[in-house]
Amino acid sequence: MQERKITLSEKEIPRQWYNVVADMPNQPSPPLHPGTKQPIGPEDLAPLFPMPLIEQEVSTERWIDIPEEVLDVLALWRPTPLYRAYSLEKALGTPAKIFYKYEGVSPAGSHKTNTSIPQAYYNKISGTKRISSETGAGQWGSALSFACARFSLECTVYMVKVSYEQKPYRRSMIETWGAEVFPSPTDRTQAGQKIIAESPNSTGSLGIAISEAVEDAATHNDTKYALGSVLNHVLLHQTVIGLETKKQLEKAGEKADILIGACGGGSNFAGLAFPFVADKLAGENLRMIGVEPSACPTLTRGTYAYDFGDTVGLTPLVQMYTLGSSFVPPGIHAGGLRYHGESPLVSQLVHEKIFEAQAYHQNEVFKSAVLFAKTEGIIPAPESAHAVKSAVEEALRCKKDGKGETIVFNLSGHGHFDMASYDAYLGGSLKDYSLDDKLLDSSISKIPEV
Amino acid sequence: MQERKITLSEKEIPRQWYNVVADMPNQPSPPLHPGTKQPIGPEDLAPLFPMPLIEQEVSTERWIDIPEEVLDVLALWRPTPLYRAYSLEKALGTPAKIFYKYEGVSPAGSHKTNTSIPQAYYNKISGTKRISSETGAGQWGSALSFACARFSLECTVYMVKVSYEQKPYRRSMIETWGAEVFPSPTDRTQAGQKIIAESPNSTGSLGIAISEAVEDAATHNDTKYALGSVLNHVLLHQTVIGLETKKQLEKAGEKADILIGACGGGSNFAGLAFPFVADKLAGENLRMIGVEPSACPTLTRGTYAYDFGDTVGLTPLVQMYTLGSSFVPPGIHAGGLRYHGESPLVSQLVHEKIFEAQAYHQNEVFKSAVLFAKTEGIIPAPESAHAVKSAVEEALRCKKDGKGETIVFNLSGHGHFDMASYDAYLGGSLKDYSLDDKLLDSSISKIPEV
Repeated sequence: MQERKITLSEKEIPRQWYNVVADMPNQPSPPLHPGTKQPIGPEDLAPLFPMPLIEQEVSTERWIDIPEEVLDVLALWRPTPLYRAYSLEKALGTPAKIFYKYEGVSPAGSHKTNTSIPQAYYNKISGTKRISSETGAGQWGSALSFACARFSLECTVYMVKVSYEQKPYRRSMIETWGAEVFPSPTDRTQAGQKIIAESPNSTGSLGIAISEAVEDAATHNDTKYALGSVLNHVLLHQTVIGLETKKQLEKAGEKADILIGACGGGSNFAGLAFPFVADKLAGENLRMIGVEPSACPTLTRGTYAYDFGDTVGLTPLVQMYTLGSSFVPPGIHAGGLRYHGESPLVSQLVHEKIFEAQAYHQNEVFKSAVLFAKTEGIIPAPESAHAVKSAVEEALRCKKDGKGETIVFNLSGHGHFDMASYDAYLGGSLKDYSLDDKLLDSSISKIPEV
Repeated sequence: MQERKITLSEKEIPRQWYNVVADMPNQPSPPLHPGTKQPIGPEDLAPLFPMPLIEQEVSTERWIDIPEEVLDVLALWRPTPLYRAYSLEKALGTPAKIFYKYEGVSPAGSHKTNTSIPQAYYNKISGTKRISSETGAGQWGSALSFACARFSLECTVYMVKVSYEQKPYRRSMIETWGAEVFPSPTDRTQAGQKIIAESPNSTGSLGIAISEAVEDAATHNDTKYALGSVLNHVLLHQTVIGLETKKQLEKAGEKADILIGACGGGSNFAGLAFPFVADKLAGENLRMIGVEPSACPTLTRGTYAYDFGDTVGLTPLVQMYTLGSSFVPPGIHAGGLRYHGESPLVSQLVHEKIFEAQAYHQNEVFKSAVLFAKTEGIIPAPESAHAVKSAVEEALRCKKDGKGETIVFNLSGHGHFDMASYDAYLGGSLKDYSLDDKLLDSSISKIPEV
């Protein structure tokens, strides 16, 4: 019997998060105030986030302790397994070794709980009574609802209306853990009321839902806001993925040649890759690839500039790869990758050529996902399937070149709530979208000068 | 940090299945031919099953080797974790220790893959080209489709029409792994054609789907039939659950006082409990409880008699607890527990008072399931939730009596494809069904004399 799973004991869960900022060749550019365009300070973020998370957001310390109370919940599903994909390798006939880190074992089915738990914890000890947030496809909303249940916090989720209606089971999951969910736009906020007045039949967008969640937090003293990706502290929390992977590769006697993760806001790719950045900077021969949809190719076709994180222009300006905050991505099934921007930290590392980026169309992505399901068993989330596709491509390149490279990718979640997208793929009705150059030029031209 | 997960390494996956027949105080009564009512032999089963499975069905050997090729696939998710439910214990304020064995980590999300893999394997080495089967809620159909993908077998699933329409995502899952699925009744079989002629709007039933799958296998030389519960060889394959649990309890320095599993056909309860039967017979103080829905109370209100396994009366007669093969269970959400009979081996051990049985209504079952989800994180399948409810009841009894008993239950699957039932529960629209005594008397009166 070949050993497929490289497991760690509970005692081997990382006790500290790794902060990549400490090892980056250049310090990150500061976020700017959307009005004054001057660097913002912690006090600007205080209405939205509790102070321990703001401290993490701006920290330059290399290691940050994970509180015991957080570890105690992470231990429900961590350490997660690292699998050797023997069956996929065999199906591809590749000399490459393929490993995947499986984050779908969390109660909510994705890596998102790695950050929802510490975010809920720090809010709890800071006196927050309620957390508001938005969710698109529902992975973040369910992860946050689970975390709030664990720390006895109330939770309000603004779910993009079209997802609320099309993905009722993610909504049920959020409700089962006790959060309240509203289809956004709602009449609970001024932002929502304004949208409804303008377009009574609006099916919502992530941008609108963010505006509603932020307004909810900003207008209630006992309420804070939480975000599921993009921000430094969110990526920090995800580094448990890469830290465990390092230990597991050591156990297996392997060294990664390529690390791969899907990129929306950047947190699952960063979670895997950040703990390896210092090795690469120290001269190790290692490729780290962020994979995005061709329909929303932020890293591969966007511009590196200061831009808003949301559509409405209420958030601070951050330096990142962006398609322009007015860019509306087409309705691909990987809802979690439909974001005009990218985490500033991941963007900077791509800009400085420490990370690479690739883009694929959704039909070729689902083709790899189905091959993966038939060989390795697990049905990948559409987002995670982008990492599968890249791993398959790299493995086939190795086959062509006769190279036995070691490829490690992050299988960030399962697709149990995304079977409609598999239906569409198997039924041949899935559309590939090419980027409209004029549309891109137009949205990039609207990026503000700083 | 409290240690929540008791894990085993891949090397600790059991290498042999345990056959409880070797240790039963009385040998099981033989199945009878539906026509002659004489004991049947292996040759009667040969049109439906490959010989290695028939040999297991009638074996009296205590230990049966698990083939290397089967172990190699089981290792994708086995050994499964045994969890200490600290958070649930705390919420209940009980001095009892609660453990749960989590089988939802399999690719198809339930324990069913423990038997679909060996069934597909033995069919493959016996020359079978295609397997036909039925599925109700879809757990068995998806587990079988996954197994057939692994061993390059074709697979045809007859899915009860109402489930096919109400649970499209289980169907998508079956199709993603490559099986063909038909809403039963179909016009592909004489059995289906007959039903459609009689009731053109039939939404199907498990009984009809079984008839179609059996006919499909019996009328095609290259095709065999597979069943997901009830039969001796199926329960045998599930004993990996209890064998692992034994090792894990030893590791944790614990001894079970109570073992609990939900009971439909009996395979997940048997999988946990069978490996402990010899201990109980040797004098150990151990309770083993099968839990069923009050709406379909086979073990608690049925009669112990020879009866048909299917509604149409085509299968052999087996001695078991039964509500009568004409009994139609109400439409509770735990579709996997809607069966008029019970595995003969489990039935005999209940009859001989080695096992106990309990029944609960679905609203109280879902109440426990939501408490479990909020404390332990995992959302249980409605079937598995029956075991949760029983564990909660036993833990509350321990609280009342001040007893620190050790309770171990089988969390046989997750509820990701059953969120509609949580919706119904949370929305207050879930109905509890009391058994109609006249209906029961009538269906029991139709049990044939042997």
